[in-house]
Amino acid sequence: MIPTLSWTSEGVRFIDQTKLPLEESYVLAATYEDVAVVIETMVVRGAPAIGVSAAYGVALGAIESSAKTAEGFAPEFEKICARLAATRPTAVNLFWAIDRMKRLFATLRTSSASMDEVKAKFLAEADAMYEEDIASCKAMGAFGGELLPEEGGVLTHCNAGALATCGYGTALGVIRAAVEQGKKIHVYADETRPFLQGARLTAWELMEDGIDTTVICDNMAASLMRAGKIQAVVVGADRIAANGDFANKIGTYNVAILAKEHGIPFYCAAPWSTIDTATPTGDAIPIEERSAREVTHHGGKQLTPNGVGIHNPAFDVTPAKYVTAIITERGVLRAPYAEALREMETVAG
Amino acid sequence: MIPTLSWTSEGVRFIDQTKLPLEESYVLAATYEDVAVVIETMVVRGAPAIGVSAAYGVALGAIESSAKTAEGFAPEFEKICARLAATRPTAVNLFWAIDRMKRLFATLRTSSASMDEVKAKFLAEADAMYEEDIASCKAMGAFGGELLPEEGGVLTHCNAGALATCGYGTALGVIRAAVEQGKKIHVYADETRPFLQGARLTAWELMEDGIDTTVICDNMAASLMRAGKIQAVVVGADRIAANGDFANKIGTYNVAILAKEHGIPFYCAAPWSTIDTATPTGDAIPIEERSAREVTHHGGKQLTPNGVGIHNPAFDVTPAKYVTAIITERGVLRAPYAEALREMETVAG
Repeated sequence: MIPTLSWTSEGVRFIDQTKLPLEESYVLAATYEDVAVVIETMVVRGAPAIGVSAAYGVALGAIESSAKTAEGFAPEFEKICARLAATRPTAVNLFWAIDRMKRLFATLRTSSASMDEVKAKFLAEADAMYEEDIASCKAMGAFGGELLPEEGGVLTHCNAGALATCGYGTALGVIRAAVEQGKKIHVYADETRPFLQGARLTAWELMEDGIDTTVICDNMAASLMRAGKIQAVVVGADRIAANGDFANKIGTYNVAILAKEHGIPFYCAAPWSTIDTATPTGDAIPIEERSAREVTHHGGKQLTPNGVGIHNPAFDVTPAKYVTAIITERGVLRAPYAEALREMETVAG
Repeated sequence: MIPTLSWTSEGVRFIDQTKLPLEESYVLAATYEDVAVVIETMVVRGAPAIGVSAAYGVALGAIESSAKTAEGFAPEFEKICARLAATRPTAVNLFWAIDRMKRLFATLRTSSASMDEVKAKFLAEADAMYEEDIASCKAMGAFGGELLPEEGGVLTHCNAGALATCGYGTALGVIRAAVEQGKKIHVYADETRPFLQGARLTAWELMEDGIDTTVICDNMAASLMRAGKIQAVVVGADRIAANGDFANKIGTYNVAILAKEHGIPFYCAAPWSTIDTATPTGDAIPIEERSAREVTHHGGKQLTPNGVGIHNPAFDVTPAKYVTAIITERGVLRAPYAEALREMETVAG
């Protein structure tokens, strides 16, 4: 299995996603600050992986503390949560994971827990989130794999794979499951400028699993669709609003429009923790603007003339009307999404 | 003026477009074979510039020859034309320029011209094409500048600028003319993977002219359109079929669909020499597939895992239905294009 992140006796071990695919190296985060930096610098990325990383970050914060009781730890706990929450603004899984640790901490404080107990419970909670994440990906795969054609090309954007989760992946989990179901899938991976998660990460992890993959530049998707090479699109999500609009890696909205224009189904696969019913529509999702250098430079080499303007939003919002179905671990949702989300929340929540 | 290519006593001097924007260096093509290589390696690129380059290549071939008469030169002439025609398959201006030299040669042969006469006439013809190209760009600018808004964002893809022509540019000529007309235009330049003509060349030449420019990754266009930042799209063309379908840099078709979806006018600017009425529709335009290395590597650094599949078509075809107008030096054409093209051919041809 692809070791996106794992708990060790010295801290959290991350595969360095900034170095893949040419170098398989690891970074050890021994403190919550290390975890925050690992998230900010995209050593780890992908909404579900960021969530679980933050939970381990909180656990590390407790382990670092010299407080004796939950009560004594409270001021530090707030600081740790605030630091981790400030790393990246768009993926809601980060806030979901921190909120879950906050709820746990509230019960520990109420029961006057010792710090040993806090440490043990925090770690157990992070471990549980890790295991749940893999189980959700498998469940999404089972539901979503059925939606893919028996044979054909599937386009994906960015990396919503094992590397974006604790393993298996959301969009790539759906593709893996389809392949395990015996379907003949050829994956087209958008390279996904500027950070090249598709060219580097999706290509790497699918090749590790022996799944046929062709990397294309983001601007080649329309002509492939017109040529009949793409039968479905599957992407992940960083935040799904209450009406089904969703934020995902910049360029997802482009792909959604192209799919609609060519009559190709467009699926979004994400765990329930990506759904943020407190955000009414996509317009309310904060979009992170990243450093111009991601666009102007590659591998230390400058591409653009000095001083030119640069725009580098990390995400865009795809309105719900472009989404054929949202695939979650609880089942497949179809429009109208506001209703479908409320219903499934009530049934399974 | 930006010195895309120029005739010198030693041959044709090209600005090396593979080195821009960080290095402004020049390549001298002293033989027709040098010109062929310069075209193949994209030291010079852009349909109109390729056409004029090929004409100078034919003139160089004549200068290199030790034949004494047009008649004696005929077998060599065939070889020279065949070599230059084999450099790149999509831009029709290449074949148009070679055909024009062939027609001239036929008259020289008929009149039993001497080689001195062939050399002089060939060079004069190439010079005339060079001057006509600049004049056409200016005329396109005058027609097209009127179509752009008084104020707003204009998206362009690839480089259809001074660097793609003998000067001024087709799509960028339209933008230059609008700015000269006093319009407040902010240009958004798609970086244009894999060769980055937008990030490197369009950004460079617009900054040289002091025109406000922001470089974006190709996958950012849809979100900018949704945010109301783009009021028009202008691109060039490598070949326009008889029905108005046109081939242009890979990703143009994507942009055309996005523009349609957001109700933004989408213009194609190209000289009459780009129109190929012998090609009935876009499906008949040959599309060059270039080396995988353009996608897998940048600046010598490998981006993708070893052995992954790569797709690298240099162009795509945009169906005529997405085109708001075609801007030529003869005037602005509107749908139905087959009729509009026939009509303007008759009037001005």
